Amino acid sequence: MTSRNMRGDGSLIIVMGRDATDEDNRRVIDRLEAAGAEAHVSAGKSRTVIGALGDPAILATLPWEAMGGVESAVPVLRPFKFVSRDFQSDDTVVSVGDVLVGGDNFAMIAGPCAVETRDQLFTSAEAVHSAGARILRGDAFKPRTSPYSFQGLGEEGLQMLAEARDEFGMPFVAEVVDPRDVDLVASYADLIRVGTRNMANFTLLAELGKQSKPVLLKRGFTATVEEWLNAAEYIYKEGNHDVILCERGIRTFETSTRNTLDISAVPVLAQLSHLPVIVDPSHSGGRRELVAPLTRVAVAARAHGVMIDVHAEPETALVDGAQAILPAEFSALMEDVRALAGVMGLKL
Amino acid sequence: MTSRNMRGDGSLIIVMGRDATDEDNRRVIDRLEAAGAEAHVSAGKSRTVIGALGDPAILATLPWEAMGGVESAVPVLRPFKFVSRDFQSDDTVVSVGDVLVGGDNFAMIAGPCAVETRDQLFTSAEAVHSAGARILRGDAFKPRTSPYSFQGLGEEGLQMLAEARDEFGMPFVAEVVDPRDVDLVASYADLIRVGTRNMANFTLLAELGKQSKPVLLKRGFTATVEEWLNAAEYIYKEGNHDVILCERGIRTFETSTRNTLDISAVPVLAQLSHLPVIVDPSHSGGRRELVAPLTRVAVAARAHGVMIDVHAEPETALVDGAQAILPAEFSALMEDVRALAGVMGLKL
Amino acid sequence: MTSRNMRGDGSLIIVMGRDATDEDNRRVIDRLEAAGAEAHVSAGKSRTVIGALGDPAILATLPWEAMGGVESAVPVLRPFKFVSRDFQSDDTVVSVGDVLVGGDNFAMIAGPCAVETRDQLFTSAEAVHSAGARILRGDAFKPRTSPYSFQGLGEEGLQMLAEARDEFGMPFVAEVVDPRDVDLVASYADLIRVGTRNMANFTLLAELGKQSKPVLLKRGFTATVEEWLNAAEYIYKEGNHDVILCERGIRTFETSTRNTLDISAVPVLAQLSHLPVIVDPSHSGGRRELVAPLTRVAVAARAHGVMIDVHAEPETALVDGAQAILPAEFSALMEDVRALAGVMGLKL
Amino acid sequence: MTSRNMRGDGSLIIVMGRDATDEDNRRVIDRLEAAGAEAHVSAGKSRTVIGALGDPAILATLPWEAMGGVESAVPVLRPFKFVSRDFQSDDTVVSVGDVLVGGDNFAMIAGPCAVETRDQLFTSAEAVHSAGARILRGDAFKPRTSPYSFQGLGEEGLQMLAEARDEFGMPFVAEVVDPRDVDLVASYADLIRVGTRNMANFTLLAELGKQSKPVLLKRGFTATVEEWLNAAEYIYKEGNHDVILCERGIRTFETSTRNTLDISAVPVLAQLSHLPVIVDPSHSGGRRELVAPLTRVAVAARAHGVMIDVHAEPETALVDGAQAILPAEFSALMEDVRALAGVMGLKL
Repeated sequence: MTSRNMRGDGSLIIVMGRDATDEDNRRVIDRLEAAGAEAHVSAGKSRTVIGALGDPAILATLPWEAMGGVESAVPVLRPFKFVSRDFQSDDTVVSVGDVLVGGDNFAMIAGPCAVETRDQLFTSAEAVHSAGARILRGDAFKPRTSPYSFQGLGEEGLQMLAEARDEFGMPFVAEVVDPRDVDLVASYADLIRVGTRNMANFTLLAELGKQSKPVLLKRGFTATVEEWLNAAEYIYKEGNHDVILCERGIRTFETSTRNTLDISAVPVLAQLSHLPVIVDPSHSGGRRELVAPLTRVAVAARAHGVMIDVHAEPETALVDGAQAILPAEFSALMEDVRALAGVMGLKL
Repeated sequence: MTSRNMRGDGSLIIVMGRDATDEDNRRVIDRLEAAGAEAHVSAGKSRTVIGALGDPAILATLPWEAMGGVESAVPVLRPFKFVSRDFQSDDTVVSVGDVLVGGDNFAMIAGPCAVETRDQLFTSAEAVHSAGARILRGDAFKPRTSPYSFQGLGEEGLQMLAEARDEFGMPFVAEVVDPRDVDLVASYADLIRVGTRNMANFTLLAELGKQSKPVLLKRGFTATVEEWLNAAEYIYKEGNHDVILCERGIRTFETSTRNTLDISAVPVLAQLSHLPVIVDPSHSGGRRELVAPLTRVAVAARAHGVMIDVHAEPETALVDGAQAILPAEFSALMEDVRALAGVMGLKL
Repeated sequence: MTSRNMRGDGSLIIVMGRDATDEDNRRVIDRLEAAGAEAHVSAGKSRTVIGALGDPAILATLPWEAMGGVESAVPVLRPFKFVSRDFQSDDTVVSVGDVLVGGDNFAMIAGPCAVETRDQLFTSAEAVHSAGARILRGDAFKPRTSPYSFQGLGEEGLQMLAEARDEFGMPFVAEVVDPRDVDLVASYADLIRVGTRNMANFTLLAELGKQSKPVLLKRGFTATVEEWLNAAEYIYKEGNHDVILCERGIRTFETSTRNTLDISAVPVLAQLSHLPVIVDPSHSGGRRELVAPLTRVAVAARAHGVMIDVHAEPETALVDGAQAILPAEFSALMEDVRALAGVMGLKL
Repeated sequence: MTSRNMRGDGSLIIVMGRDATDEDNRRVIDRLEAAGAEAHVSAGKSRTVIGALGDPAILATLPWEAMGGVESAVPVLRPFKFVSRDFQSDDTVVSVGDVLVGGDNFAMIAGPCAVETRDQLFTSAEAVHSAGARILRGDAFKPRTSPYSFQGLGEEGLQMLAEARDEFGMPFVAEVVDPRDVDLVASYADLIRVGTRNMANFTLLAELGKQSKPVLLKRGFTATVEEWLNAAEYIYKEGNHDVILCERGIRTFETSTRNTLDISAVPVLAQLSHLPVIVDPSHSGGRRELVAPLTRVAVAARAHGVMIDVHAEPETALVDGAQAILPAEFSALMEDVRALAGVMGLKL
């Protein structure tokens, strides 16, 4: 963490209107300098453009467009700092139990969407474990669009997950939806997930930043990559540096899939950030038959892993059964993943 | 609350695939009947379509598409109940202090985006009060995209707002962002706001449903109208029936405005729900010069009010200064609002 | 048309990467100067930012981001020229037959979506004429998503529209979908419409720019305001200055309406351009019951008119019957329009 | 082409309102039967649902929602016929010159975005040919957002492309933008491309359906998969069955890429249609560094090929230089493609 990086080097372009006065220009420059930024003035034939270089976190949040004479203010660099590749050039590798996520490792995370019963959980866990999954997924708290849907088993579900971990030797990931439950979930889980609806729940993010279990941060289904990295920054700056990102599809006008998997986000993030990024092929497509192709795609994009819903009896699932694959389908898919990971230089 | 409504009358259309067997059909019908729904079977030349009538909350959440032979399942009616116009045909009118919101009333809510200092707050409050605003806005907790932006004054800000209420005789609205702060905010504010990023923070919504102060629920900037009403249902079903909706623009590809005000949502909601709906012309456009035209538009759409950022010195605002209008601009706008409200049969 | 405007004053911000060399900077500056632009260099601590002022049409189209050392290139001003408010500060007022569109005039355009039979057309035309509409709408060529839908009557339909014009003394607007039909449609219609799917059909736009009938350019349902103005520029620069814009809703994730009416585009365009802009409340909502509220909204937004589908028997309509209103509903709506237009200082 | 398929088996669900009368129901049923459909009536406690089975092209286009008593009408099956997998279960394999596109073949298409000079074209063509590309790309007509951008060399460009084909023995693909140019382009090109802005230019599509050269139909950047297949149907039903689809990214709120590559569309199309689908990694991302990862992703998604912009001197490109890769980068990428195609069972 060098001081150079902490000073930041964001840049902001302020275009003055056609009728801006010298005094207008002067006030903008004064305010820039008061904010610790360097101002560079370019006077054109009919307009003046002021370029500012300084701390992006400060530059981005002052009300430039409210100042007299300003036509527009365009931030050029990003407001996040610690999570950027500029701040740390080496890949972050996160330890989840004894499984490494990041770098050249490809993590297979699998299990049921929600924990429903001990039997259901153990059947899935055994199946995915024997097929080669390394981290177990399963939720005890579910945020649901309708208040009338099944909301999860709560602590009882976490206990079952912990038993499955001990039985099969797989660390597990589970979601937290309430800042008051962070300590509870952290006391059981090896990796704590923030769901898509909570990506911008800054209260919850700050709480997760203050504890030490690694965090899996799903992208808000309507968040830009930049907003997602800002959310990661909320966790990181509180002191918890073990953050894994999870692309899970964004909301678009297309209706043949539940969301549109933004696979480009994987290479884009590899440029912008040092954090690992995995893909959720189950929730992005929302359809069982898309899980295998989107998993193969994630390997080819050099994601750091996938998280897959596997359910032994999808027809009886209480949550999201339409997208769960069967244990046998998961085993078959593992073969493809191994072959493609080999080509891409990734270790399972 | 009649039993008829409680039984619900949602409908779900299940299209069986070309290769579905009689047994597949039978299992779907059995499951429908087990869920308390009526099944109606239409056998066509090459496919069978099964129509189900029952409780929408149950129908919508079972994994039909995971069942053998099912090609697709299309829900036809909405999963929310209490907030729908079907459940209550008369308009809900909410009392905020002594101000009525809903029915033929048009509420002017105005004030600074964030409370920064006592002077700043009182200057704005006095100005909007003398121009005719009836409810004061001002926030003490701000959820910000960047962790490095100003996050609000906290309880100190709520105290200043309460003083301004007493001084000018205007009830006030303030945001809550953390379920642990609900009691605190409720002990000061007359109306509690849920911001756009928290519309799907179901933990926060449930907490608000359990207390008695009215709630102003902003639309998530990427939520459909149906999801928004589901969020309102989360509050309503816990026992708090004083919910006001606030349209504030949705995320689209258009870049000339911060968000796209979905003005059609106002008449759409008037059909679907009995809850009042107001418009936020400041945050939807994100530009000062759009506040007046979008306010006039809200009156013509027969919204139940507007909420406007007014700041005496927008250039020095710590939050969202680019969209705040001056007190004098607010006064001028009030004249237009009065004239248009007269045409629309609305009372100020 | 002054030379100053022709020179343009676009601006482009080129951010050089952290590792850019002096030679990289030099090559960018040379290329800018070769393009007739002024280059202003700001050397910051870790990056250099080059601001360019010049012809936006040239600046926007060169491959800056392909040049060595360039991290990003951000255009600040708009590539269109003639249609911008910078180029002409006074409102353009277009004559459609003897009806003025633009300035303080509010144009009521109404009629059936498609011409189906002489009777159907004349019934609607008589009804909207007697209720106060000033321009008749009705199409002879329909671009349809499905190749199996009704595609219009062709020239026979245009002849019927011309007869209706003569009978009722109303100029009419009709759509053209093929550049080879421009002369044909222009020989009948008083105003030629470009539909939403053809907004970026530059071949068709250029053809319309070369003839003299005014053009009504609908917004592409996924076009930004800037792209829409670029499309208007295609017509304008060929010599036809009589261009009217028509906002008709954009594609978003919301499903309760066919498209989302972007009402903010009306005041945004009033700032950016001198061209008149009308609103289509029928196709944006796609639902009959939204036509009246969205028409009232258009008046309050100070649009220059509306275009409304009116059909005497919507149930039998071959195209878009779901959104057509009845003649009696249109008459009732005219009363509201008159009252609101009075408040807004608009003449019918 | 069996009669069974021609009869279609679309289905439409019509939900009658709470207040619909028996007569309302009767009129809907009569109209359904008049349209040749079977009506199945389900009378629930508070609503009636009418299921219709019939020709989807007819069912989808009648104005059900304008009929008295109808609350909503939901089409369940798709309006396209010939291009669907239901109509033809085997993959279509298209011959482009002597190159097969479709089935288990993976086509490498590469070359400059626009033809600028003979030298530029031949340099690129030689490079991509020696690296293993099988089809040459290069455009002589370019539709550009701004009327001031370079629009292509026209017939002169086509002649150069034909010379390059003869020189290197590679068939070539070129875009057509005007229905009047179809014969001209068809007289030179081996494969005719419809660009994203013209996907819904039905006039152009119909013209292409009447000639015999294969057509490469790019997805409109705001089209759903269903609309895209409808556009293909426009070509197919005129008699030209050699249609290849090209996914090239859709418009979303994300700004870190020019468009969002919808990679899920590849497996979705493999289910819905028998037509081949390729991917354009250059235009979807709009950034040079994304071309290689998105190409690898396309192979893993089992697309039938990719089309890549290659330019020997991207800095001097007149069109889209920011996304062109160098010949050497293309050669390196070919190695990855070969290895991944091997795993996926695809032939180059």
